[in-house]
Amino acid sequence: MIKVGIMGGSGYTGEVLVGLLLRHPEVKLAFVTSGSHKNEKISDIYPHLEGITELTYKAPDIEKLAKEADVVFLALPNGMAMNIAPKILKAGVKVIDLSADYRFKDAKVFKEWYKMDHSSKNLLAKAAYGLPEIEKVSGAKLIANPGCYATASILGLYPLIKEGLIDTDSIVVDAKSGVSGAGKSLTDDTHYPNCNEGISAYKVASHRHTPEIEQALGGGLKITFTPHLTPMTRGILSTIYAKAKKPVDEKKLTKIFKDIYKKTHFIRVLEGKLPSTKYVSGTNYCDIAVKYDKRTNNIIVLSAIDNLIKGASGQAIQNMNIMFGLPETTGLELIAIYP
Amino acid sequence: MIKVGIMGGSGYTGEVLVGLLLRHPEVKLAFVTSGSHKNEKISDIYPHLEGITELTYKAPDIEKLAKEADVVFLALPNGMAMNIAPKILKAGVKVIDLSADYRFKDAKVFKEWYKMDHSSKNLLAKAAYGLPEIEKVSGAKLIANPGCYATASILGLYPLIKEGLIDTDSIVVDAKSGVSGAGKSLTDDTHYPNCNEGISAYKVASHRHTPEIEQALGGGLKITFTPHLTPMTRGILSTIYAKAKKPVDEKKLTKIFKDIYKKTHFIRVLEGKLPSTKYVSGTNYCDIAVKYDKRTNNIIVLSAIDNLIKGASGQAIQNMNIMFGLPETTGLELIAIYP
Amino acid sequence: MIKVGIMGGSGYTGEVLVGLLLRHPEVKLAFVTSGSHKNEKISDIYPHLEGITELTYKAPDIEKLAKEADVVFLALPNGMAMNIAPKILKAGVKVIDLSADYRFKDAKVFKEWYKMDHSSKNLLAKAAYGLPEIEKVSGAKLIANPGCYATASILGLYPLIKEGLIDTDSIVVDAKSGVSGAGKSLTDDTHYPNCNEGISAYKVASHRHTPEIEQALGGGLKITFTPHLTPMTRGILSTIYAKAKKPVDEKKLTKIFKDIYKKTHFIRVLEGKLPSTKYVSGTNYCDIAVKYDKRTNNIIVLSAIDNLIKGASGQAIQNMNIMFGLPETTGLELIAIYP
Amino acid sequence: MIKVGIMGGSGYTGEVLVGLLLRHPEVKLAFVTSGSHKNEKISDIYPHLEGITELTYKAPDIEKLAKEADVVFLALPNGMAMNIAPKILKAGVKVIDLSADYRFKDAKVFKEWYKMDHSSKNLLAKAAYGLPEIEKVSGAKLIANPGCYATASILGLYPLIKEGLIDTDSIVVDAKSGVSGAGKSLTDDTHYPNCNEGISAYKVASHRHTPEIEQALGGGLKITFTPHLTPMTRGILSTIYAKAKKPVDEKKLTKIFKDIYKKTHFIRVLEGKLPSTKYVSGTNYCDIAVKYDKRTNNIIVLSAIDNLIKGASGQAIQNMNIMFGLPETTGLELIAIYP
Repeated sequence: MIKVGIMGGSGYTGEVLVGLLLRHPEVKLAFVTSGSHKNEKISDIYPHLEGITELTYKAPDIEKLAKEADVVFLALPNGMAMNIAPKILKAGVKVIDLSADYRFKDAKVFKEWYKMDHSSKNLLAKAAYGLPEIEKVSGAKLIANPGCYATASILGLYPLIKEGLIDTDSIVVDAKSGVSGAGKSLTDDTHYPNCNEGISAYKVASHRHTPEIEQALGGGLKITFTPHLTPMTRGILSTIYAKAKKPVDEKKLTKIFKDIYKKTHFIRVLEGKLPSTKYVSGTNYCDIAVKYDKRTNNIIVLSAIDNLIKGASGQAIQNMNIMFGLPETTGLELIAIYP
Repeated sequence: MIKVGIMGGSGYTGEVLVGLLLRHPEVKLAFVTSGSHKNEKISDIYPHLEGITELTYKAPDIEKLAKEADVVFLALPNGMAMNIAPKILKAGVKVIDLSADYRFKDAKVFKEWYKMDHSSKNLLAKAAYGLPEIEKVSGAKLIANPGCYATASILGLYPLIKEGLIDTDSIVVDAKSGVSGAGKSLTDDTHYPNCNEGISAYKVASHRHTPEIEQALGGGLKITFTPHLTPMTRGILSTIYAKAKKPVDEKKLTKIFKDIYKKTHFIRVLEGKLPSTKYVSGTNYCDIAVKYDKRTNNIIVLSAIDNLIKGASGQAIQNMNIMFGLPETTGLELIAIYP
Repeated sequence: MIKVGIMGGSGYTGEVLVGLLLRHPEVKLAFVTSGSHKNEKISDIYPHLEGITELTYKAPDIEKLAKEADVVFLALPNGMAMNIAPKILKAGVKVIDLSADYRFKDAKVFKEWYKMDHSSKNLLAKAAYGLPEIEKVSGAKLIANPGCYATASILGLYPLIKEGLIDTDSIVVDAKSGVSGAGKSLTDDTHYPNCNEGISAYKVASHRHTPEIEQALGGGLKITFTPHLTPMTRGILSTIYAKAKKPVDEKKLTKIFKDIYKKTHFIRVLEGKLPSTKYVSGTNYCDIAVKYDKRTNNIIVLSAIDNLIKGASGQAIQNMNIMFGLPETTGLELIAIYP
Repeated sequence: MIKVGIMGGSGYTGEVLVGLLLRHPEVKLAFVTSGSHKNEKISDIYPHLEGITELTYKAPDIEKLAKEADVVFLALPNGMAMNIAPKILKAGVKVIDLSADYRFKDAKVFKEWYKMDHSSKNLLAKAAYGLPEIEKVSGAKLIANPGCYATASILGLYPLIKEGLIDTDSIVVDAKSGVSGAGKSLTDDTHYPNCNEGISAYKVASHRHTPEIEQALGGGLKITFTPHLTPMTRGILSTIYAKAKKPVDEKKLTKIFKDIYKKTHFIRVLEGKLPSTKYVSGTNYCDIAVKYDKRTNNIIVLSAIDNLIKGASGQAIQNMNIMFGLPETTGLELIAIYP
């Protein structure tokens, strides 16, 4: 059994980690911390866990707690992991960080977009970017778990880049997220009466997942990325546009995607169907379809995930499975709750 | 492994059965039938199952299919099971019927509310009413799986009746259901623009789950039952009102509920919290809280379930587990997808 | 033209007042105050008003502002109007208070439920309870605008009480409200991911609109009232239960309701249809249907309003129209936005 | 008073026309037809109109009815208006067609996308495309009212084309629509449980509003257009992408939009805010903001409308106002119901 600790267990990504890990056959939850809810029962904060776990949140005293775990998930606000991860690693314990702190190879890019100096720059080179369908994460002791938008968008774009099919100056990613992506903190934008029955863009040309997507795809490309707040709780749909270098055939395109993702476990390349966030809700799947507009020579990729599972906590567990040599799908054989 | 067949696998209860049974560790899905989708892949009708199962719907030829299964779930419209179940039972195969056909001991009550003659009346006495928290179902060869509203309402009322705490002439059940309760068939009332952002009652004083609740509680009592269509996909909340025979104490009331349901696996009697359909969504739980209005001497019980799980397919599997001597929770250790 | 001032214009009831009054043919908006947004453009807080009004919020300096208006609407948190209204009235200006401060004739009831001493008790007797379908409001200088739940529930119960048709010990009101009823302030319960796709009761047997309903119906009766938070933005549906004193006929019951409300302008007694919050959304209507359960001798009344219009700002304007001798429907001839 | 007839009054666009025209100060509703609901009261089909109108649907006998009106709105399925409009025009009565029948100047384009021969081609040249912000509609006797997606998209793109600011080969329109855009007919895709809580694209690179946008913008340009079904009832948000010919300044861009639309009545060019479908819901406004991504040299335009008002029935009335010499805003001074 892998002993797992979670720091920051009272946000949504922390709570989803708890739920998934309680049912993971190879995991024992060693501790879950929360600064704001210490000594409270997790099920008092999240009543859906009533009767399922008797755990209480512990104070976030990492020096004391680290040695109780084989791996610690950090589900903390940006800027905190970079101070905590080094201590955990020093104790010989692995770290999977769900924040942005270790996602960038270049500390300057981090500073430019996150407006903070990085306090443990030396670890950036050692951190693996935890998108296991396209990056090597086995062997890593520190994993930077990708952003939700980044996951959906990179997985949709990767085959086009890998095969050199598109003009990389032309990439546009129009992404739609459910409201849970904004987290558990209260804001005007996520107040039910304000966001229900309305869709709007936000952070146009300035969202922080932009450089993350660019780094993962490489080659110094730049993309235009527009996130939208959508009146639903879960899910991200990325609609991706790029000019084909030369006319392509839709069936062949789909075949290319299928071949590239053949050995992965959670990517479903659809044919004759289009992705809906509903089909992946509550699962670790990323559903992808690729279309071609022969009138304009644009390739259009649709990519859907559950923002809190493949876009956060599920992918973190997928990374843990790989780190510890377990089958990648252990504890993640989830089927969408439909309808 | 239990070999399981499903007849009527293309409706919501059938599809949820498929999803749950695919992950049940002691079950092998032998066949799933659909009259309207025979020979089609289940995952073409329900794309969330893409890559999870390669099964295709079979034609509903029960004579041919019955012997392939140890138990057959009937997820068919009312009025069909009563013709099919006898044939399956004759083949020595157990039946769990999710329709209303075998729920009533008295064929006259069935006829009065369902406007049909019963074609296999002799089986009514042999069918077990599959609410295992209050009825004995082990040993049964034919189980009548309860209605969704009935499940939530009976479980909320049962302790009050059992302990003789209320005036049985005064019972009012005000129930709120998500739209999936109306099924997969298209209707004006379930067309998104018509039902979104509106709540309304329907079938006031005439809903067919009324006599089912009355029969389960016994003593010839009559209740007023009002269902409401609520703008959400899943869940039922029953708010139950009854006059206390004499003043009671809320804490003691809660204790009574806890004691009565102590040995059950899926009822969570809450204290200091109120049920929300959200906390049970995607699970087989029934969350119950009991309150007392000392100003009016009314007891108020709140009871929440997922209409398609504890209210249908999950409960059906719970019944199967009992029938086959498995732990009641096998394949049903579900945690709500929250938020 | 009536010169109108609004104090507390940045909450939802204030904002709806602004929207309705901007289109009221006999009104000139003299000022709108906001403590938290003074000197900001209303349309910067509420972008749907962009290009429609150039008004900015003023600081809430009532001494200075009162004389600019003929009537002032107070859309402030409970406990504030009781200090402000006396000053406005002293300046010879009429007051319509949308809070609970002047709704009770008995200051003790106010204190019991609102946990505050009343600072202008002497005005309680002079305030008219602004439910013009059943109370006289013309001639009043101070109007206490009813609560949203109270409006729907009283209008549904009033004919039964007036005609002595029911056992007044048996009244149960099960009410369902959209999330906007909780106001503009951020809370965990109104955070989109927390309340979307879930229905739950709250303040069971303890909601403050209970004594308001009881006072309006008179006779010292006590009711059981249960509010529910429903995943939709607007609307209240009250489902009302009471034992008939003797068996009744549904058609005659409906006739009684129609007769009693014949001369009103905003009550629609439905026949052959049931109310939905959707049909009254964005309007000042109250839709009512009455049903009879002959099996249990319960009368069931369904009553639907838009919580922010007939349940707050629309009704306030209806009261203003009456106070100033205008046709009651002036500025309120609204048609629901459907679907 | 203008005497107005509506053919096809039982669909959503017809019903919205009825609601708006009942409150239009210069209009008398002469008749409303419905093939499927003839002789039924409109308020029996649309209960929100209860007590507001006593009109019944008439049989669609246009020969008999035409002379009763000064103008007839055709709110019929595609392919019907082209047979009916000639008869109405012959009777000297004006026509505003809400279908696609007269939107194209070139009958071949119509045939290519709508798979029908056009039966009154000669009228195509005479029909005015009813987007009055950019087209001349006064003087027209036949108006082709634009599609909903087309309205939002064209108004967002027009200034960029007019000023020659963009590379016309690079235009991508990613549009999100509420479910009412799919109409009143029942489909699996618009069944509440199927579409709630999920977003998905549909008709990728093949939606019929594509050539309509292209024709309106002129110059033979081709666009990539992707519509998405969004879990909300009303509204369209078009997110529009195009490469700037040369680097631009966001403030100057906004100024260009403001100048071009200065004399229009329903376009609000936002600054410091982004459009939300919520801010225009229930109104005839089109809210537009323009942003610039200097990293990629893409211009991003956000354009939001209510699909049933500015995207259909409201715009049709705006066209009628112009045709009859009324102020353009008559009967359309609507304020969004917010929240």
